[in-house]
Amino acid sequence: MQVHEKGQGRQQEQLIYLDHAATSWPKPPEVLEAVIEAMQRDGANPGRGSHAMAVRASRILFDTRKVLAKLLRVKNPNDIAFALNTTMALNTAIKGSLKPGDHVIATAVEHNSVRRPLEYLKKSIGIHVTYVEPNEAGELDAKQIVDAITSSTKLVVVNHSSNLLGSILPVSDIGEITRGQGIKLLVDAAQTAGLLEIDVEQMGIDMLAFPGHKGLLGPQGTGGLYIHPDVELEPLLHGGTGSQSEAIEQPTVRPDRYEAGTQNAVGISGLRAGVKHILHETVQKIHTSEWMLTQQMMEGLLSVNGLRVLGPALGKPRTGIVSFVIEGADPSEIGFILDQHYQIAVRTGFHCTPLAHGTAGTTETGAIRASVGCFTTTDEVETFIAAVKEISQHYS
Amino acid sequence: MQVHEKGQGRQQEQLIYLDHAATSWPKPPEVLEAVIEAMQRDGANPGRGSHAMAVRASRILFDTRKVLAKLLRVKNPNDIAFALNTTMALNTAIKGSLKPGDHVIATAVEHNSVRRPLEYLKKSIGIHVTYVEPNEAGELDAKQIVDAITSSTKLVVVNHSSNLLGSILPVSDIGEITRGQGIKLLVDAAQTAGLLEIDVEQMGIDMLAFPGHKGLLGPQGTGGLYIHPDVELEPLLHGGTGSQSEAIEQPTVRPDRYEAGTQNAVGISGLRAGVKHILHETVQKIHTSEWMLTQQMMEGLLSVNGLRVLGPALGKPRTGIVSFVIEGADPSEIGFILDQHYQIAVRTGFHCTPLAHGTAGTTETGAIRASVGCFTTTDEVETFIAAVKEISQHYS
Repeated sequence: MQVHEKGQGRQQEQLIYLDHAATSWPKPPEVLEAVIEAMQRDGANPGRGSHAMAVRASRILFDTRKVLAKLLRVKNPNDIAFALNTTMALNTAIKGSLKPGDHVIATAVEHNSVRRPLEYLKKSIGIHVTYVEPNEAGELDAKQIVDAITSSTKLVVVNHSSNLLGSILPVSDIGEITRGQGIKLLVDAAQTAGLLEIDVEQMGIDMLAFPGHKGLLGPQGTGGLYIHPDVELEPLLHGGTGSQSEAIEQPTVRPDRYEAGTQNAVGISGLRAGVKHILHETVQKIHTSEWMLTQQMMEGLLSVNGLRVLGPALGKPRTGIVSFVIEGADPSEIGFILDQHYQIAVRTGFHCTPLAHGTAGTTETGAIRASVGCFTTTDEVETFIAAVKEISQHYS
Repeated sequence: MQVHEKGQGRQQEQLIYLDHAATSWPKPPEVLEAVIEAMQRDGANPGRGSHAMAVRASRILFDTRKVLAKLLRVKNPNDIAFALNTTMALNTAIKGSLKPGDHVIATAVEHNSVRRPLEYLKKSIGIHVTYVEPNEAGELDAKQIVDAITSSTKLVVVNHSSNLLGSILPVSDIGEITRGQGIKLLVDAAQTAGLLEIDVEQMGIDMLAFPGHKGLLGPQGTGGLYIHPDVELEPLLHGGTGSQSEAIEQPTVRPDRYEAGTQNAVGISGLRAGVKHILHETVQKIHTSEWMLTQQMMEGLLSVNGLRVLGPALGKPRTGIVSFVIEGADPSEIGFILDQHYQIAVRTGFHCTPLAHGTAGTTETGAIRASVGCFTTTDEVETFIAAVKEISQHYS
């Protein structure tokens, strides 16, 4: 057991982790420290008691909302509700806002966390959905949204960046279109919170779903939903809130309305540390660093025979995601070899986004996705490129 | 800052924590170790990749399901789905199983996490709900359930133990009634998982919602729902599952069907350690210890003038909860004094269960709830009794 663990330790030291789009790793040291501190010192139930430890646990939630509000330019921190993950936040936004007959515009690069709730509502209550088709690189012209609007359009859902293609969608331009038209704009920031500048007011975003454990560098089990004060959703969860206990209905006061049951104060404490790390580093700096790494990676990969990089062309905007396929090679086999022989962690398969694979023309095969993070180094990228080159020789 | 933290440390050493019904604290040391290990070593996204670290993260979920299945006597671990908290599990069970016109039987000691979803469905889709009234101590005769059954009864929801009164409801007897009648039995085990023997098969339980952070000694942000293989629920969350990515609909395979989005592998790793701790100690031993502590506490409290203990009489079955009121005293004031002057953490107010306060006759005042845990000592209980005696003198 001891030997095995030491082995794991050695393995970890050599590991090149390029799966940041799934979850970021490692986290900054202060994130782990914050988790430990919350468990040891502030482990009471937040918002459920008035004793000193419960007050400290509540304070964690309060403070974290404040730093999140600063990062996302949210005026009132209470308009941010915590969630288990982005999927829960998206389900809250989608199911809480749509009624039978409503028309929704989404894109063909959405994740299943958007597509499946929409398809469920289509079948269960009868909504209508138009999936606007980006170009093969996953880029969209906001005018395409205009063309899709009908008199019953109530919601536009777009991801800020495709989790397969790394393309960045023109959220601000779409916000200009929906603003004041009685159409709500829901943004899936799974790949951009903490990684691209977000200003919910300026961008005209009515709802923003975000993960805590990706770009925000917090632990798993965290995420949230920003809800503009003018937007009223039916909560996804009904239950105890520690407030207005005597009321039969869910309280209307925020954030309680959207946070039934015990919150993950321990994880949220880590999230606070992650967001503080980002505020200190600045989103701009992190994004620039990630963009440089993707360009380095693309340049290297594009020199490989039979290798096709998906998403935006070299030199164009993208997030830290570089997906690719190699002619004649099964992506999952490439991923397996990278893991087993090179200790490089990437993700292969369909990435929960079959629509985007349709866009990219990789529906049959899936793809290999390498995604960088704020601690990824140029040396790691070089090693990765060399490994792919070596592997690709077996397929040419 | 340093000084302040040291101050907190001193305070913690003296703290008597009697709020275990809200969340258990402290956790066994191995729970924190498991959280640290998961963050440092296995921090990838479970079920979302095939590289070594992702496989280890998946393994955490798999293993935890296995120890939970052992504890709750669940045949197939895949019939257990993880959730953010008990509230999410209860919402999944209630909203996923009821249709317009269905009749539900619940009790008048349910938590708002049961009552509010039921009241929401009553209003939104038109279900009918009967709240069966236990006696003032929160005890229920299973025959009362029989009397409430109508031809359209589809679901019985009972908590296993009232979170205010500590009374234990006759789940096995109710299971005998519902079994084979086309009526599903949903049990809210918020106050009993890890604290009272549960055998879902033998007790005729179709669905069991449980927290990870109370009796199971895991971190906050964890919990789950057992769903009998014959029960098919519409998932609460639709989204990515890492499986059958190409399907428009939520996969039918368990546990994926009920676990959309990134799971809290870090918290679940801690939960695994908590459940293992319980399996080692045995539920029987923990329950006996807690019962002895409540009896000691009740004996002490019952000697205080003007103090009324809620729930089952001395010597009768109860979980680790002792709620009480003192004539002429505001419970929140008592709680405040206990916290500030004695460093004893209890919970005051309505405990998200206004119905149970109706049952106990404390609707106007709320109550003080002291709840013990597996690390509570008889000395702590003595100190608590002495403090209450001292405080009560100011009110007599």
